[in-house]
Amino acid sequence: MPSTFRAEVFPARTPAASQIFTTVLSHGPLTRADAARRAGLSAAAVTKAVRPLIEAGYLVEDADVETRPVLGRPANLVRVDGGRALFIGIKITGGEIFGVLTDLCCRVRVARDVPLTARAPKAVLASVAELVRELLTEADGFGVPVLGCGIAVAGEVDRAEGVVRYSPFLDWRDVPLAELAAMTTGLPVTVDNDVRALTVAEQWFGAGVGLSDFAVVTVGAGIGCGLVVHGRVVAGVHGVAGEIGHVVVDPAGPPCHCGRRGCLQAFAGDAEIVARVREVTGTSVTDSAEAVAVAHAGHPGAREVYARAGEAIGRGIATVANLLGPERVIISGEGLAAYDLFAEQIREAFTAGAFGSATRCELLTRPLPFEEWARGAAATAIRSFIRADQ
Amino acid sequence: MPSTFRAEVFPARTPAASQIFTTVLSHGPLTRADAARRAGLSAAAVTKAVRPLIEAGYLVEDADVETRPVLGRPANLVRVDGGRALFIGIKITGGEIFGVLTDLCCRVRVARDVPLTARAPKAVLASVAELVRELLTEADGFGVPVLGCGIAVAGEVDRAEGVVRYSPFLDWRDVPLAELAAMTTGLPVTVDNDVRALTVAEQWFGAGVGLSDFAVVTVGAGIGCGLVVHGRVVAGVHGVAGEIGHVVVDPAGPPCHCGRRGCLQAFAGDAEIVARVREVTGTSVTDSAEAVAVAHAGHPGAREVYARAGEAIGRGIATVANLLGPERVIISGEGLAAYDLFAEQIREAFTAGAFGSATRCELLTRPLPFEEWARGAAATAIRSFIRADQ
Repeated sequence: MPSTFRAEVFPARTPAASQIFTTVLSHGPLTRADAARRAGLSAAAVTKAVRPLIEAGYLVEDADVETRPVLGRPANLVRVDGGRALFIGIKITGGEIFGVLTDLCCRVRVARDVPLTARAPKAVLASVAELVRELLTEADGFGVPVLGCGIAVAGEVDRAEGVVRYSPFLDWRDVPLAELAAMTTGLPVTVDNDVRALTVAEQWFGAGVGLSDFAVVTVGAGIGCGLVVHGRVVAGVHGVAGEIGHVVVDPAGPPCHCGRRGCLQAFAGDAEIVARVREVTGTSVTDSAEAVAVAHAGHPGAREVYARAGEAIGRGIATVANLLGPERVIISGEGLAAYDLFAEQIREAFTAGAFGSATRCELLTRPLPFEEWARGAAATAIRSFIRADQ
Repeated sequence: MPSTFRAEVFPARTPAASQIFTTVLSHGPLTRADAARRAGLSAAAVTKAVRPLIEAGYLVEDADVETRPVLGRPANLVRVDGGRALFIGIKITGGEIFGVLTDLCCRVRVARDVPLTARAPKAVLASVAELVRELLTEADGFGVPVLGCGIAVAGEVDRAEGVVRYSPFLDWRDVPLAELAAMTTGLPVTVDNDVRALTVAEQWFGAGVGLSDFAVVTVGAGIGCGLVVHGRVVAGVHGVAGEIGHVVVDPAGPPCHCGRRGCLQAFAGDAEIVARVREVTGTSVTDSAEAVAVAHAGHPGAREVYARAGEAIGRGIATVANLLGPERVIISGEGLAAYDLFAEQIREAFTAGAFGSATRCELLTRPLPFEEWARGAAATAIRSFIRADQ
């Protein structure tokens, strides 16, 4: 077990404590009154929740020297002591594993990546262990414990059980990843769907701060969707949620690898776009970069493939807006590299498909590199640390 | 102002108080310990929340004589005193207005309906006022105050503002119904979308009791959907949510009255089915009962119309399951009269469209008459009474 690891328990795993902690984490130094207002709690509840967190060193309270009044004492501000602990976040992609070491404020201190050479659980675990070892060595220099590790994987993940139920791109079924990785790394491990992990990062630190209802739609190898409803990320009763990639947008559409026809994935997934561009242009493009290049060069068939992908994405987003009425949909993922090729069609199809006031939902694009996804994984580890039920 | 009306305020409009109240309301006499466990609150929080509710007479605590132990004191059970107050619920349909007088436990004491002769806001308000007057006269006999009135309307409703943004079947836009009805009836009025109101009734007293995530899909004149996520009904940031009727299930499908093509509504709405049956059979059917009769008589074209409707409904439900992963979907609405004509297609299309574990979502049919929808409206009035933010 690495020297920096020490079993440590969050002192107050009550809903109020975790709510106050995440409120202060997201909204930065706050007076107790502000924290209470934003978290929707009474002053008494805040006092009760804050005390053990200050005693344990997770929160600190300082005088607000910036807004010092001319007369009287300055207000006290509560903030998270980022240097108090460290966390590790891991994002597994088809070709690489990205890892970050973050502080308790989920600020990235160190980022590393290793290639993924094979996809069997044993091989992936060995790469994860190697990456965690590197990050733990870096952590030694900070002199504070690493309290948990979050791992984000595309596919159907049962977070409560720590099991990857089905990951098409790794070809995994029912892999108890949390347990295996905990044994390998010696750290408490949280496993979550990668888009849901990214959504936590957006909710706490990104374009979702302060919103009770929003969605993140990621475009790339897969088409994913993280949903925040009533201020919490939707995980689904059986581990499936946000499967926008397998919402059928056109039953007469192309076949999807899942066996259906006309899934959003079949129109807009990276591999599907590349295959279609190859088909319509008669060229031998093999990856997204080449397919985008052909479309940028003006080949009408290739441009049409992207246009149809954009139309399908916009239709999928309209479905989310019609069902949930979110305030904002954040579009991200490596597929944004082709965004100019389908941005217009996304917006048009969204506007055409959104019903009534659902059209008022804001669409926003945000390039979020894989490091940010790994940060999301670290955020899920912080969430597990501060809250037993999430 | 009617004699039974008295301004009365719920004594503790805190999240904990309303949570304990609705827990006891749904799960019915409970020990404090049980109530705490089900509501996820501490014993101290329950004690604090329960005290003012008992003092005000909304909750009562009795010895549990049924399970009296051989030795020692029987446990005390907390329950809602249904007789303490009354509420009115109103459901407006295209042809009638249904009204119920309920007690504080939302048990229906009196049910009435009046025909809807015209659809302009003024005419509808006059009919609502007449119905409320009748119910208030009945209420006099109970000797307790009527504390609120809930009105449920199909369409886009901004509950917080009390405004019907858009109701296609009434042809209303931006009607401040809560304010107008409060002036006419002298009662505090809550306005909500009718399917969301029905969903509250299912959550509190029906097939959604105890579930944190479920959906109600109603089939009839319109195709509606009420969603409960994280234990709360989804209302949408801008008032639109659950618009499953305008999710496009097939972009090559028939035109919808909303201007799009292939909405679920265009396949499965009552009027749309009747028109299609007329078209394919060359008969002159004018309403659902006649269309169902033609299909039941075995006309293959008519049967095919219902089969396609079922397929579209199943596809819509699969989309809800893929995005939200609910535990159960409750199918209801007056369209259930034709259920045998499309039950199989609903299940087949759902199973084909649901992704991974989303197939584990349970489909359940529940015939819920309009009186139950009116009861849902009364439940929204009770919810407004006990909770400021809902």
